Amino acid sequence: MTPDIDPCWLPARALASLGTRRVLVLAGDAPVAGAVTAEVATATSAHGGAQAAPGEHADVVLATLSGLASLPSGDPESADTVAAALVAARDAAEAEPLGPESFLTVRRDGVTVVLGGEGAGLLYGLHHLVRRGAAAGVAAGRTVPDAGEAAVERHAPAQPIRMLDHWDNIAADTPMGAVERGYAGASIFYADGRVREDLSRVEQYARLLASTGVNAVGLNNVNVHRREAELLTTALPDVARLAAVFRAQGIRVYLSVDFAAPITLAGMATSDPLDEGVQDWWARAAADVYAQIPDFGGFVVKADSEGRPGPFAYGRDHADGANMLARALAPFGGTVFWRAFVYDHRQDWRDRTTDRARAAYDHFAPLDGRFDPNVVVQVKNGPIDFQVREPISPVITAMPRTRLAVELQVTQEYTGQQKHVCYLGAQWEEYFGVRLWGDDRTLADVVGGVTAVSNVGDDAFWTGHPLAQANLYAFGRMAWDPTLGAGDVLDEWIALTFGSDEAVAATVRAVMADSWRTLELYTAPLGVGFMVRPNHHYGPDVDGYEYTPWGTYHFADRDGIGVDRTRATGTGYTGQYPAPWDDVYESLDTCPDEFLLFFHHVPYSHVLHSGSTVVQHIYDTHFAGVERVEEMARAWATLEGAVPDAVFARVTERLVEQRRSAVEWRDQINTYFLRKSGVPDAHGRRIF
Amino acid sequence: MTPDIDPCWLPARALASLGTRRVLVLAGDAPVAGAVTAEVATATSAHGGAQAAPGEHADVVLATLSGLASLPSGDPESADTVAAALVAARDAAEAEPLGPESFLTVRRDGVTVVLGGEGAGLLYGLHHLVRRGAAAGVAAGRTVPDAGEAAVERHAPAQPIRMLDHWDNIAADTPMGAVERGYAGASIFYADGRVREDLSRVEQYARLLASTGVNAVGLNNVNVHRREAELLTTALPDVARLAAVFRAQGIRVYLSVDFAAPITLAGMATSDPLDEGVQDWWARAAADVYAQIPDFGGFVVKADSEGRPGPFAYGRDHADGANMLARALAPFGGTVFWRAFVYDHRQDWRDRTTDRARAAYDHFAPLDGRFDPNVVVQVKNGPIDFQVREPISPVITAMPRTRLAVELQVTQEYTGQQKHVCYLGAQWEEYFGVRLWGDDRTLADVVGGVTAVSNVGDDAFWTGHPLAQANLYAFGRMAWDPTLGAGDVLDEWIALTFGSDEAVAATVRAVMADSWRTLELYTAPLGVGFMVRPNHHYGPDVDGYEYTPWGTYHFADRDGIGVDRTRATGTGYTGQYPAPWDDVYESLDTCPDEFLLFFHHVPYSHVLHSGSTVVQHIYDTHFAGVERVEEMARAWATLEGAVPDAVFARVTERLVEQRRSAVEWRDQINTYFLRKSGVPDAHGRRIF
Repeated sequence: MTPDIDPCWLPARALASLGTRRVLVLAGDAPVAGAVTAEVATATSAHGGAQAAPGEHADVVLATLSGLASLPSGDPESADTVAAALVAARDAAEAEPLGPESFLTVRRDGVTVVLGGEGAGLLYGLHHLVRRGAAAGVAAGRTVPDAGEAAVERHAPAQPIRMLDHWDNIAADTPMGAVERGYAGASIFYADGRVREDLSRVEQYARLLASTGVNAVGLNNVNVHRREAELLTTALPDVARLAAVFRAQGIRVYLSVDFAAPITLAGMATSDPLDEGVQDWWARAAADVYAQIPDFGGFVVKADSEGRPGPFAYGRDHADGANMLARALAPFGGTVFWRAFVYDHRQDWRDRTTDRARAAYDHFAPLDGRFDPNVVVQVKNGPIDFQVREPISPVITAMPRTRLAVELQVTQEYTGQQKHVCYLGAQWEEYFGVRLWGDDRTLADVVGGVTAVSNVGDDAFWTGHPLAQANLYAFGRMAWDPTLGAGDVLDEWIALTFGSDEAVAATVRAVMADSWRTLELYTAPLGVGFMVRPNHHYGPDVDGYEYTPWGTYHFADRDGIGVDRTRATGTGYTGQYPAPWDDVYESLDTCPDEFLLFFHHVPYSHVLHSGSTVVQHIYDTHFAGVERVEEMARAWATLEGAVPDAVFARVTERLVEQRRSAVEWRDQINTYFLRKSGVPDAHGRRIF
Repeated sequence: MTPDIDPCWLPARALASLGTRRVLVLAGDAPVAGAVTAEVATATSAHGGAQAAPGEHADVVLATLSGLASLPSGDPESADTVAAALVAARDAAEAEPLGPESFLTVRRDGVTVVLGGEGAGLLYGLHHLVRRGAAAGVAAGRTVPDAGEAAVERHAPAQPIRMLDHWDNIAADTPMGAVERGYAGASIFYADGRVREDLSRVEQYARLLASTGVNAVGLNNVNVHRREAELLTTALPDVARLAAVFRAQGIRVYLSVDFAAPITLAGMATSDPLDEGVQDWWARAAADVYAQIPDFGGFVVKADSEGRPGPFAYGRDHADGANMLARALAPFGGTVFWRAFVYDHRQDWRDRTTDRARAAYDHFAPLDGRFDPNVVVQVKNGPIDFQVREPISPVITAMPRTRLAVELQVTQEYTGQQKHVCYLGAQWEEYFGVRLWGDDRTLADVVGGVTAVSNVGDDAFWTGHPLAQANLYAFGRMAWDPTLGAGDVLDEWIALTFGSDEAVAATVRAVMADSWRTLELYTAPLGVGFMVRPNHHYGPDVDGYEYTPWGTYHFADRDGIGVDRTRATGTGYTGQYPAPWDDVYESLDTCPDEFLLFFHHVPYSHVLHSGSTVVQHIYDTHFAGVERVEEMARAWATLEGAVPDAVFARVTERLVEQRRSAVEWRDQINTYFLRKSGVPDAHGRRIF
């Protein structure tokens, strides 16, 4: 590893709890055997532990059933205490079989056994030990994993799909740069018009992702330009190189494909999904991919969305399009991720009856039941586009006969672009905890997977802002277990990243834990969204999208603000929600304050549940937001010398920009609403 | 000439009045002798006339005194009627000498003599005949020039400086493209990172300019990037090629230079204008240029403006900077054009005391008298930036001891970008007619020259919109004679371009004559300006610049709008004007409606001199603007078959876009002010 490249949450220290032990690896046929062995070798050589051979004493055994079966006697009898622990682990696995990505842990007589499934389970188990060791270090100053004696712990991912999409372009001159909505330098995959020769950064990245439980990666931007479309064909050997790097860490790769590829790549006259020639072309393309990448994941598709080609051109629907691609992949076990992010991006702002929020539901809900089993419909968390605050997309409630994945945005497009601290785990905790039908089921129980747009680039800190690494970490962890609390995940990340000094941990926690709500305070108020500078989406511009074709309006006038999405008098969007949410959002009495302007147009004098008026709330939150950023900066300043100098300097520099930007947000938003409403601030603070 | 390239106002037909005659050329030593001879040869061979030799009969004689002196006898006696006319012309020139760019005409016994000065005068005289012939054709269906018998007419340019600046970049990847604020394709000067090999388009362009009286051209963007800076040094031989092309048409070339060139090009440590090494570097650079281009015009400089380097970095002022360059050029007769477009482009929008409108005066007026005689301070027509409507810059009134040139914008940056018909002659007529001191002197009497940003590119029509050719034509004509009426100049252009059909002329006139005021109707109201989309400046965005650092604000709130620039309560900008204008603009009673919001912040209910309220005026003008565009389109549609098909098609296509854009302007502006003011339209028309 180049010393200049930040190790993120896996600095050498983080593996001390493992590396100080004697570790026996019995990984058998597991595809991650090499990765597990390498982690153990590196950790033990760095921290004074040792790799144990079968028959030698070990403190920790990392095994699979196939690994146990390879022991000389066929039975783990060589060392008494080790043997007893292994027997207990095997018995547990035989009593209740382990899925390929699952693992269990047993601790008996001082020996810790991790028994992993035959996929990446063992690697996940290893990182579980690492996390637990780091956390124990913080909690008690100890470096020994604290697995309860004798008890068998079982761990399995809640979601089979835990995927990061990369909006990386190959050509640097494609719109919006090499990484679309990337805020951390250039692509780690591509340079000079092709896949990089040196994939060592990708190896490090795959290891980081595997440590969080991510098991799938989309390799290129969903807006597929010419050069990227060729990844499917002429550049396949390069894709295979990337696939090999990810495979070693239990990660399958996917390609975003151009729905018009039969035309653009093959010169055919059509890409009609019902055309046999088109179907054959995709079938052959899929076969070619699998010939080189047998565990290829499948396709990600943005079709009939923001100008991308799709089945509509031929009078077909999204099911026709997705199923055609799915059938090309089915013989090889591949999957199509078909994005539901479909809306009219040439809307007339004068037309108040068209509502972009309705679009995904209106397009997709009627198709429920029509998608093939190897199609996953990928639904953005909210109905608009990754705003700091949106209600959950009702599409997720409307397609019980369809495999769904929710799509999050780890890259901070609308949440400060990795110049602002914004820990998104808190946002995701809210999403995953939403109970959608009035019973105990949550979003996490309904969807079959979680995908997200990655936030990394070739920046030395991977994510531009070092604290944005926590979002990448939290994504993987919360995709694995959506019931994890954001605060707990943050603590895990802090312990791994910064070590066992509780004072440091408490300060980092103070800077980060509430940073998402802080960002919400000083940006667009009460769920109204999209008061950002057009195109680049950084910084305030209240009317920036107000008269555009993008369908993102706030309708502020001298009397009030907000989008009436009620059934009674508005666009009817509330009716897309199941009971009781259709009524909760419909009524001003029950609509949560944080979504008020998303669902209702109200006068500035409207009194919130909080007791404040809308306009006073706007003033108060925007003053408070800046104050909180100033508190964050003061807290961070105390860490000089306690965190690596480079991290301290980078975060310090970004906090200066965050404060400048927060002040700009405060002043523009407050001035805009003072000018429009004429209502002075109740506290007489300065508004320009 | 490539048949695909539009001939603009010099189609072969336009020279019929000359080409049907017997023409004797006696150009002598005039530098434009070749151009005059070529025009006559082309015209006569196309239209059945002939070139007469000395001693033969001629209908038209184009002569200079040096040409007359070269006649065999030293005296024009060879043909009686010709001789009599020549004697009359020579006598007139001896009675009152001709300037080098001047000419006189005499008509006697059917013979027309044009006697030109020893510069480009004869060429200007030739084009005078061409214009008069085309106009006579329109007026009476005749093709004979109608110079009154016997009377001597004298013609001289009102301004010695009649210059077009080109904001052409060499490198295509420089900000804002190959031609900054260009709307007509790529540069006609540069391609592939250097001066074009084939300069035939430049030859055509130089001929077009000379026909209007333009005598100077700035070859590169005032924002001088690295590649363009090298025009002064390594690329000089290429500049010399361009200079030769222009020289043949009586036009001198200028280069925009980088004030930091001693640093950026020569690797020196400073570009301090008081540093001797810097002075020496510029003196050598100038000497090198004149060695290759003896009639080089000089430098154009944008310094300490919008981030460009300048003397401020060294604690020097604009006079220090300009004089240093002027002294490098003085030994060779060169001139520095130093732009007064200097303001704080990082202004804080919260700060209402800083006023961009004040900036040029505040910077330059104190320097009056400090500039060397070969410095021309180049002042934009208005105090902000080429808006559809601005008051005249008070700098023009404030520097009596300084050579000044007014800078106009032929390229339609803020006036429809050559997608909209906008005949700017009408705007310029107003500028040139402004009486600045309460006596009869006008702007035209005060300045020593007129410069403008060109609107051409390698588009087949040169200007994108074929009717935008009229702006290029009108610039040259009105720079020559600022007392010309815009309507008369438009008629000249129509006659040359479209010929003698009065019905066609009347229709083109109906489309164009009032098009500037039409554009004003549907864009930013009452002189407030800058309600355009940021950066590209096309289309409406009322708040687009409201919270930016650019100093261009309207301060609209729920009660009113406008910028208080009075001395009594505002920024004091009115005080920069001489009496009586300081009081005219200061008082609501006397401030012209069209500048109301430029000088005053008033309630929406304020009653204009027109009798309308501000907000009702906004509604009325925006509805009217669209109606007028629709009338323009209907009028143009009647010309199918009566104008060249390609012209008809291009203008028709642009009128569709102009109507779409005008509707967008109407609806955004009206909606914005309805939302903000709450005042309904008195006529109940639809506002969204």
